[in-house]
Amino acid sequence: MRIATFLLDGQRRVGLVSADGQHLQPLKLAPADARRGALALIEAAANGQALPEAEGPEIALAGVRLEAPLPLPRRNLWCVGRNYHAHAQELQASVFKDNNSNPASWPIVFTKVPECVVGPHDDVQLPGAVSSQIDYEAELAVVIGRGGKNIARADAMQHVFGYTVVNDVTARDVQMRHQQWDMGKSFDTFCPMGPWIVTADALDGTKTRVRCWVNGELRQDGPTENMIFDIPTLIETVSRGITLYPGDVIATGTPAGVGLGLTPPRFLQPGDVVRIEIDGLGVIENRFA
Amino acid sequence: MRIATFLLDGQRRVGLVSADGQHLQPLKLAPADARRGALALIEAAANGQALPEAEGPEIALAGVRLEAPLPLPRRNLWCVGRNYHAHAQELQASVFKDNNSNPASWPIVFTKVPECVVGPHDDVQLPGAVSSQIDYEAELAVVIGRGGKNIARADAMQHVFGYTVVNDVTARDVQMRHQQWDMGKSFDTFCPMGPWIVTADALDGTKTRVRCWVNGELRQDGPTENMIFDIPTLIETVSRGITLYPGDVIATGTPAGVGLGLTPPRFLQPGDVVRIEIDGLGVIENRFA
Repeated sequence: MRIATFLLDGQRRVGLVSADGQHLQPLKLAPADARRGALALIEAAANGQALPEAEGPEIALAGVRLEAPLPLPRRNLWCVGRNYHAHAQELQASVFKDNNSNPASWPIVFTKVPECVVGPHDDVQLPGAVSSQIDYEAELAVVIGRGGKNIARADAMQHVFGYTVVNDVTARDVQMRHQQWDMGKSFDTFCPMGPWIVTADALDGTKTRVRCWVNGELRQDGPTENMIFDIPTLIETVSRGITLYPGDVIATGTPAGVGLGLTPPRFLQPGDVVRIEIDGLGVIENRFA
Repeated sequence: MRIATFLLDGQRRVGLVSADGQHLQPLKLAPADARRGALALIEAAANGQALPEAEGPEIALAGVRLEAPLPLPRRNLWCVGRNYHAHAQELQASVFKDNNSNPASWPIVFTKVPECVVGPHDDVQLPGAVSSQIDYEAELAVVIGRGGKNIARADAMQHVFGYTVVNDVTARDVQMRHQQWDMGKSFDTFCPMGPWIVTADALDGTKTRVRCWVNGELRQDGPTENMIFDIPTLIETVSRGITLYPGDVIATGTPAGVGLGLTPPRFLQPGDVVRIEIDGLGVIENRFA
């Protein structure tokens, strides 16, 4: 099942993507619920409620504007740093220079504010004088279904509602100078998300492939099997002492190939287009303005 | 003006504390707004709306249970690390050992999840096996009124709605092993807040005094004039590229005297009581269970 959030006649709606990917079936939600995008569905599912019924005819996907499936997550997104070995290596002299030398010790977990989420085809605003080192990070994001605390690794996959694609856009200079990363990760529009949520029964997030192109040039290409900390371990880690809630997002880290890792580094410029595709999930493509 | 959130007959209400500190005047708010505590008032004030009218008679403060003035902040709280020189020194070999050696370079900014906020007299739950190094951090928290982005230092104080007290409770082992601090700061119940919000016209947060006692023993005592980065600088910093919203909270860092800074370190144990007082603001006192 693929759950999309979209604008129809100026109203936010939630619906299912058809098997051929060409149509959307809007679902019947109270307006206050529809405004929260897929979050209302995820909470209902976590409470054991059935999917809302269809409302109105199918519509052509090409005729609507897709929004982020979770246009405003319930709290800051959890994000994992340094979760692919080749990426750990490419940034070992910059972002990770003050971090523990053994990447396999404990995951690095930081956050992004919910308000920086934008849609799968929305522009990302370069922040002008505030940073000149804007970088992309293609990532598989886990969307939590049933909440919980101290979730054991063996039970963790039962808490996964589904997956979506995010670009963990980063201001490298700001990330590094504040030592804690949340600010450099949270500039307005710095989290393109979409194109929808694929539910866990329809995609195995532990075995898929993350790719990223900048202006058509392939920059990142990593199988999620290569994660240093796999998805069950990440859920176990983040829920240790901290209750996870339905709709929580855990961005699982980025493969090698970010702009800062190139020699010389190549940061994003006005007009650049970043395209991220995850097999079995879909594509987001955002222009940097 | 002092704005409190409290439970009256099992319902969450918002009201004003009387001049003598003995009574509460409940305000008229729609139930959905009252459930958000003082946040509804802050948003209304930011939109230029007047304070809601009084509803019903004054009640004795001693007869109600105070909750956190913001029982669920709109997103993760912003928190500042290493913002008093003596505290920078006491943790230079532990928490700050991998951080830039010059504390005056840029503020360290991290976050705490909104769901870890508890009331001014609620118990804090020690997380058991997950951490054995639970520590207190007494802090003045700034509550943002009017939102904004790229707020200049000179204009920053106009964006302050008021102040409250927080205990930035921290699991030191978890904070350090994940390198980014958000997780070790975000365990359930790890942010006691209160006893109310004092509005900016009634308290100068830049010139007050933060004290903290553990089981009656004075551990922290710092004037806010000693902050490395003052409140206007913190607002300028966090809003650089990131829109601040009404009700955002910025915890401004803790003075020297935390448990990890003692020789040998002294962490919190079941039954310990941590009392924090900020002059002109009030007291929170929480038992660790």
